[in-house]
Amino acid sequence: MPIYTPPTRDMSFVLHEVLNAPQSDIPGYDMLDRDTTDAILEEGGKFAAEVFAPLNPVGDREGCRLENGIVRTPTGFKAAFDQLRDGGWTGLDCAEEYGGQGMPHLMGTAMGEIFAASNMALNMYHGLTHGAYSAIHAHGSDAQKRKWLPKMVSCEWTGTMNLTEPHAGTDLGLMRTKAEPQADGSYKITGTKIFISAGDHDMAENIIHLVLARIPGGPEGVKGISLFIVPKVLVNDDGTLGARNAVSVGNIEEKMGIHGNSTCVMNYDGATGYLLGEAHKGLRAMFTMMNEARLAVGVQGLAQAEAAYQNAAAYARERLQGRAITGPENPGGPADPIIVHPDVRRVLMDARSFIEGARALTFWAAELIDRAERTGDEAAEALVSLLIPVIKGVQTDRGFDTTVQAQQVFGGHGYIEEHGMSQFARDARIAMIYEGANGIQALDLVGRKLPAAGGKPIMAFFESVIGFIKENEADAALKAEFLDPLKAASKDLQAATGYFAQSGMKVPNNALAGAYDFMHLFGHVAIGLMWARMAKAARAALAAGTGDESFYETKLATGRYYMARQLPQTRSLLARIESGAEPVMALAAEAF
Amino acid sequence: MPIYTPPTRDMSFVLHEVLNAPQSDIPGYDMLDRDTTDAILEEGGKFAAEVFAPLNPVGDREGCRLENGIVRTPTGFKAAFDQLRDGGWTGLDCAEEYGGQGMPHLMGTAMGEIFAASNMALNMYHGLTHGAYSAIHAHGSDAQKRKWLPKMVSCEWTGTMNLTEPHAGTDLGLMRTKAEPQADGSYKITGTKIFISAGDHDMAENIIHLVLARIPGGPEGVKGISLFIVPKVLVNDDGTLGARNAVSVGNIEEKMGIHGNSTCVMNYDGATGYLLGEAHKGLRAMFTMMNEARLAVGVQGLAQAEAAYQNAAAYARERLQGRAITGPENPGGPADPIIVHPDVRRVLMDARSFIEGARALTFWAAELIDRAERTGDEAAEALVSLLIPVIKGVQTDRGFDTTVQAQQVFGGHGYIEEHGMSQFARDARIAMIYEGANGIQALDLVGRKLPAAGGKPIMAFFESVIGFIKENEADAALKAEFLDPLKAASKDLQAATGYFAQSGMKVPNNALAGAYDFMHLFGHVAIGLMWARMAKAARAALAAGTGDESFYETKLATGRYYMARQLPQTRSLLARIESGAEPVMALAAEAF
Repeated sequence: MPIYTPPTRDMSFVLHEVLNAPQSDIPGYDMLDRDTTDAILEEGGKFAAEVFAPLNPVGDREGCRLENGIVRTPTGFKAAFDQLRDGGWTGLDCAEEYGGQGMPHLMGTAMGEIFAASNMALNMYHGLTHGAYSAIHAHGSDAQKRKWLPKMVSCEWTGTMNLTEPHAGTDLGLMRTKAEPQADGSYKITGTKIFISAGDHDMAENIIHLVLARIPGGPEGVKGISLFIVPKVLVNDDGTLGARNAVSVGNIEEKMGIHGNSTCVMNYDGATGYLLGEAHKGLRAMFTMMNEARLAVGVQGLAQAEAAYQNAAAYARERLQGRAITGPENPGGPADPIIVHPDVRRVLMDARSFIEGARALTFWAAELIDRAERTGDEAAEALVSLLIPVIKGVQTDRGFDTTVQAQQVFGGHGYIEEHGMSQFARDARIAMIYEGANGIQALDLVGRKLPAAGGKPIMAFFESVIGFIKENEADAALKAEFLDPLKAASKDLQAATGYFAQSGMKVPNNALAGAYDFMHLFGHVAIGLMWARMAKAARAALAAGTGDESFYETKLATGRYYMARQLPQTRSLLARIESGAEPVMALAAEAF
Repeated sequence: MPIYTPPTRDMSFVLHEVLNAPQSDIPGYDMLDRDTTDAILEEGGKFAAEVFAPLNPVGDREGCRLENGIVRTPTGFKAAFDQLRDGGWTGLDCAEEYGGQGMPHLMGTAMGEIFAASNMALNMYHGLTHGAYSAIHAHGSDAQKRKWLPKMVSCEWTGTMNLTEPHAGTDLGLMRTKAEPQADGSYKITGTKIFISAGDHDMAENIIHLVLARIPGGPEGVKGISLFIVPKVLVNDDGTLGARNAVSVGNIEEKMGIHGNSTCVMNYDGATGYLLGEAHKGLRAMFTMMNEARLAVGVQGLAQAEAAYQNAAAYARERLQGRAITGPENPGGPADPIIVHPDVRRVLMDARSFIEGARALTFWAAELIDRAERTGDEAAEALVSLLIPVIKGVQTDRGFDTTVQAQQVFGGHGYIEEHGMSQFARDARIAMIYEGANGIQALDLVGRKLPAAGGKPIMAFFESVIGFIKENEADAALKAEFLDPLKAASKDLQAATGYFAQSGMKVPNNALAGAYDFMHLFGHVAIGLMWARMAKAARAALAAGTGDESFYETKLATGRYYMARQLPQTRSLLARIESGAEPVMALAAEAF
């Protein structure tokens, strides 16, 4: 069975030595003293590793089954979900007013990585609920919040998001599901939604669907879409459960992965729904929580990469094949462990240098979300909105690649389902698609986030890079190993930004054709910046002699690898971008 | 159900307009006149598309089952395999002496792509047989050839390759299976082999296993391994089938993909085997056919990419979502087909520019194999031996990536098994692993093929690149669009080669740490060379006014894309290589 050890030491390093969370001026960050965060990560990590992780292959093998209209989850899922609920993990970063613990989103994000790495399919039942909670929390009336939120915070009721229809995926303007107003102020919802994760299951007494639909007579396109709360079971005014609503599962999909999560076709046949937020402004309401939701998916990419990496590293230390070219390192054994081979090291170093950099970037983004939400800092909001498509797109692409490379370390054994390496790759694959496919992230980045506010957010990002370099270049070793490569990569990103500003203005396709490469170029610079920040922290700890030297030396070596071997990718990406739309668009559609 | 149209026009272009096959001085190439090759590709392609392809999802869904010691293949496989046999497709490039049609390997390779694209798992039963045929043909005594080959050429009997044991994968020196000599000259084979593709099934009356084993008393390590013919059913001197041999299936593996092919644990319990070739020289005998076998796996990467690409292109032309930024292209419809979006084009152009370049490279390699085998040309043998690890490693890596990107075009629909896009990716994944995992290909390239014959083969490759550039640079358009980028990429490859020669000589890990990146760098230059050759041919056809202009214009546009947007990757790869082993090997094994 695959192993998983929560990377709590590394998380603590980012929280306390890079972000210095408890010293932050963000309200509530004073809760995040090191003893508290360490205790939460250790306790939650223990639960995730001992309860969630062993069920990961079970969920993959058994999948969900639709029996007489009810979805049955895999063996053990219900008991584990009960434990998650009973342990209070579902409300970690929810409002205390509704039964949550009121912790910053940063803390929820760290725990989210651990749960997603342990069992992504199982954790999604909670993750979707959290998303629905956030939307109701942001847009619901007080009465709605009181009615729905407490049981969602506890996950006694779980939540879903219903956007996609068979003919309307990315293009939500084509949506047809309709919502007819009733005399009592409610609506009758009719239509079919597909790809509804956690759409039905046997682990909660009610499921609260958030459904996008059109109120007849409203504007066409995306401006005529409203958001509705549609419970599986109607809820009486006293909070007790009433009649079954006209919501049913049409089918569950056979998928490449996340078999333990039920992906449902949901049929609404005049189901009772309640308008959430303003009529016709449902898309905006649904997307208020976009940064949080997309960050969570970026975390999934990182989490699957971490779990796969840990298994590859363990296998590489144990599997005996061949000898080191520099002479036997296990002379008493029949062969050396394969970790002696540089090409195996390459895979492991590519993995960990990406993972640790991405984790730091993720935590920084979570901090920015907290800052924006808790202080109303618009610059933080703008900056994190710029970073989010990068994090979602890059971390899920490279997270998936990392699982594939980790699988490769196992040779033929990696292809056999028994070892679990295939599951990491198959599960990670979905994160590149849902919550806005990665091509859409790239478009969001280049088409909306770059030009936003006259380019202020991207300028702020560059300033944070250049500012960090300037502040720290007196440290010669830091400069040579981290700041100089970061500066070079940042110049590539600036050049690409300039190309879009000039050429993309005249020929919009020049920007769109380079959007995906720009997203990855941005990801390299952002992760490079985080490595520079981590290197500074590690060097400071070593200079202060605070102990744990090998941790900091390892951190620095991993960072050096990133700067030397991953960051140069920016050159090729810039070349691709600067070749413009011409080669991309040269063919007629019929030529394909 | 996924579509598949054999790319016969493109194959014909490479065979006749790039390689000019029938004009070649290679014996037997006079058979390859255009009418003949077109007829074979059309007829074989029709059969593959109509019979093999529809069974591809069936095989994935049903998989193979082990029932009372016998492997049952998926519904329809046996009938299709009978048709393959009856159509004479199994002996296309086998010796006429044993019932084959004696066509060049080049023709077998072209048809191999079509069969692999149609149904990789089903085609493997034939592919493995072909490999075993080749080994017996090269190393068997006349009596052995007469006894075993005719029924293998016809696939009445199929073949397998038995190398791996649980503790001995890449490191075959650790192998334990033993072969005890008997008084009658035969051997008793005892041991367990794993990952035996097509190890058992219900589609042939006999299975001829080629098994590596040790004769007691022989040298230790790889120098004490011999190769044996071990039939599932013993064969009497008159050619009739005799008693069942002591060979059994221990288990069949649950795998990520190629479910339609039975991957078996094979138990040999004192099974009767016959020495093939010389004692203790089994590894050499098994690997005589390595170039052919590895080329065939490189073809699988290309083939899955082609099939996935075709489906992505079709979907992109049909799926309506969003509008072109330059204005509606389908104003009468609810939205434009997604092929209008530059980011979808990027995926399709990345795919086809890789596929067409890789196909040309593959055919060139097959031609070199024919030249080496049919004329004894040692330079051709050395050059193709250099190219083979590049083709196997690069085409399976990038072939897999292409299937993943093609799947992405489908959005959420790509993740659902129903559309078949997941299968292309899951099937393609194995090709990166078997027949020498791609890391091993990189080591073979850098550790053995580069230094071979004092570097003559790599010099010959550079000469072919530089020679082609010099010969053609009078054509200004070809120079600007193809030759100049090729020259720049080739310089990067030369720089990397020089780095290995100097730095790798002193510190071998400096070469090994960069081996994988070197393989991909080499792949870009080799594919770039093929694009330059194809561009020359396309320009010549356009200048000659032979008709079919849109084919040639499309070819040129696709090639321009490769040169402008794929080839610049060589810069980053060179930077990775030149960073040396230090960052790769910095950590202690315990730090992972």
